[in-house]
Amino acid sequence: KKTNDKSQNPLFLLIISFLRENKRKLLHSIKVGIALVLVSLLYLLDPLYEQVGENAMWAIMTVVVIFEFYAGALLSKGLNRGIGTVLGGGLGCLAASFAQQVGGIGNGIVVGISVFIIGAAATYTRLFPNVKRRYDYGVMIFILTFNLVLVSGLRAEKIMEIARERLSTIVMGFSVCIFTSLFIFPIWSSDELHDSLVSRFEHLASAIEGCVEEFFKFCDEKENRIIPGFDKCKTVLNSKSKDELLANFARWEPWHGKFGFSYPWEKYLKIAEHLRELAAMILSLRGCLESPRQAPRESIEEPCEAIVSSLSWTLKELGESIKRMGRCKAEDTIVPKLKSVRVELSLVMSPARLGSLDNSQGLAMAS
Amino acid sequence: KKTNDKSQNPLFLLIISFLRENKRKLLHSIKVGIALVLVSLLYLLDPLYEQVGENAMWAIMTVVVIFEFYAGALLSKGLNRGIGTVLGGGLGCLAASFAQQVGGIGNGIVVGISVFIIGAAATYTRLFPNVKRRYDYGVMIFILTFNLVLVSGLRAEKIMEIARERLSTIVMGFSVCIFTSLFIFPIWSSDELHDSLVSRFEHLASAIEGCVEEFFKFCDEKENRIIPGFDKCKTVLNSKSKDELLANFARWEPWHGKFGFSYPWEKYLKIAEHLRELAAMILSLRGCLESPRQAPRESIEEPCEAIVSSLSWTLKELGESIKRMGRCKAEDTIVPKLKSVRVELSLVMSPARLGSLDNSQGLAMAS
Repeated sequence: KKTNDKSQNPLFLLIISFLRENKRKLLHSIKVGIALVLVSLLYLLDPLYEQVGENAMWAIMTVVVIFEFYAGALLSKGLNRGIGTVLGGGLGCLAASFAQQVGGIGNGIVVGISVFIIGAAATYTRLFPNVKRRYDYGVMIFILTFNLVLVSGLRAEKIMEIARERLSTIVMGFSVCIFTSLFIFPIWSSDELHDSLVSRFEHLASAIEGCVEEFFKFCDEKENRIIPGFDKCKTVLNSKSKDELLANFARWEPWHGKFGFSYPWEKYLKIAEHLRELAAMILSLRGCLESPRQAPRESIEEPCEAIVSSLSWTLKELGESIKRMGRCKAEDTIVPKLKSVRVELSLVMSPARLGSLDNSQGLAMAS
Repeated sequence: KKTNDKSQNPLFLLIISFLRENKRKLLHSIKVGIALVLVSLLYLLDPLYEQVGENAMWAIMTVVVIFEFYAGALLSKGLNRGIGTVLGGGLGCLAASFAQQVGGIGNGIVVGISVFIIGAAATYTRLFPNVKRRYDYGVMIFILTFNLVLVSGLRAEKIMEIARERLSTIVMGFSVCIFTSLFIFPIWSSDELHDSLVSRFEHLASAIEGCVEEFFKFCDEKENRIIPGFDKCKTVLNSKSKDELLANFARWEPWHGKFGFSYPWEKYLKIAEHLRELAAMILSLRGCLESPRQAPRESIEEPCEAIVSSLSWTLKELGESIKRMGRCKAEDTIVPKLKSVRVELSLVMSPARLGSLDNSQGLAMAS
């Protein structure tokens, strides 16, 4: 029995650690499964099916297409889909009735021309960066609905009824999504953005520390040295597109947790921009680390370490204050500390001076 | 009449310059318009409509959803959609026939359970970075088709026929897309990736030059100085996600122009990574520019300018050789040049030394 325990233990621990690491992913998958089953009930239960009929298809489609990982992404996609459908459907109905008034062979020509013009114009607007970032999906659905309504309007009789039924099933699908996404363990992109910004301060602080440690450690094997924290520094450097995506979603998210309405997400992006600049500077220090020993390093070791420890302390303090979402308590201690770092640096006159400027900028932003 | 000419001229020039700048975007929009009109013919022309019926809807949907800016993106999405539909439809049919064999109340339970399991499992695979990058859309369509087939299989009699007809209309929509995208002025993402990589060498070279020029120009107004080429440098720094997207699409693109099959796109990504590191270094030089004058600069002006001009010459030469797609002709001149730069640098002992290391890496990769 004892051996059995032993062999089970690692497996059990493995499963536990797997669950912990992938908690959010598993949660999301299960939520999607639940939403799909809920929306399938439209088909499975006879009374519901009698109400919606074949149009239940559109509810399923909505759930599959809209259900995104972050709640904000889901809301953004859902609203885009709804508004795009309404606008496209309305314009399609107008164009269809105009084409019917023309009648005869002109009917088809009017349809063809309006499909071309609306399709090309809407596609062109999709290519503007501002539209692409936020309303890309909505414009696509607009084109789709416009075409379907206009073109099938030629054949179907009860076009308004079809449009109304489809819209109502889309609303049903959207409601199922909202219910499962927002009320069962929601995954907020605002939390993700907040946490990742806070952790970046930590990463950069440890990268600076690692850098200086390496600089004074040993200088014999100077090629292909791995500096601790540099890979995280690179992640910080390449974070721009992910940040913008998250901030974009976060704007759609309703009041929750510690974030209110109209939370200043654009400030997060500005701070992240400064952190990227700082990361670039830290990464460029590698050249110094790899260079052959030029000056006697021992003489500057002590002041350098003092400088770096106050720099990294400053970074950690800033990150901590963002985490607490409180005004940086240490504001009146950080500024004099940075000033003294500046004086020390001008004494040592090392190229690490670059870092201090940026920190004071970061401080100005955070406070 | 003369005044009329004058007033028309600027407008005309404006239009010309607008057309030139937005050539590709306009082209894409027009192509989408054409594809939409072509696929609408399935509804507009009676003989075609008699063949496909209401299923023509799926062809329109395919065109709207699949038609992406780059040919590679279109191919990737189209193939994903096709394969996802086939797999999802097949598995859905299997599950539906199994559920029918169970029969009775068990039927609905089997359907519900399989919807949940397949939905959750497929959603989980969508979250793997590798799957997300390339097959995200395919997996989504797989889930969608599986659900539609399985759930509507409960109600519809001729499920195989519906599946066959839908698939054939999707293939029709895809063919229309391929025709308009690949045969009418195709927009290749491989061209875009190639050109943007080449132009980055130019940008970095001019940024280095601009940097040194500023350094020796005037030192009075040292705050908020705009260094020419630094904004482009930042663009280079933030290029990672766009590059990966383009390389991803480029892999799907068939033999065309100067690119053969299995063209080494991953090398482009590696070169771009090195260029990003170089851009980080150049950007971090700003600290040097903004620092108060420490040493007499005039004494090092001449050697520095010589070094920078050979560095930027090297960069331009490397970019040129990638543009030509030829082995770097100047290889035997670049390496000694860089070596002499190194010697010069060690004489001047300026922090600009960081740059040279990276260039030689870039050279190693390009050749």
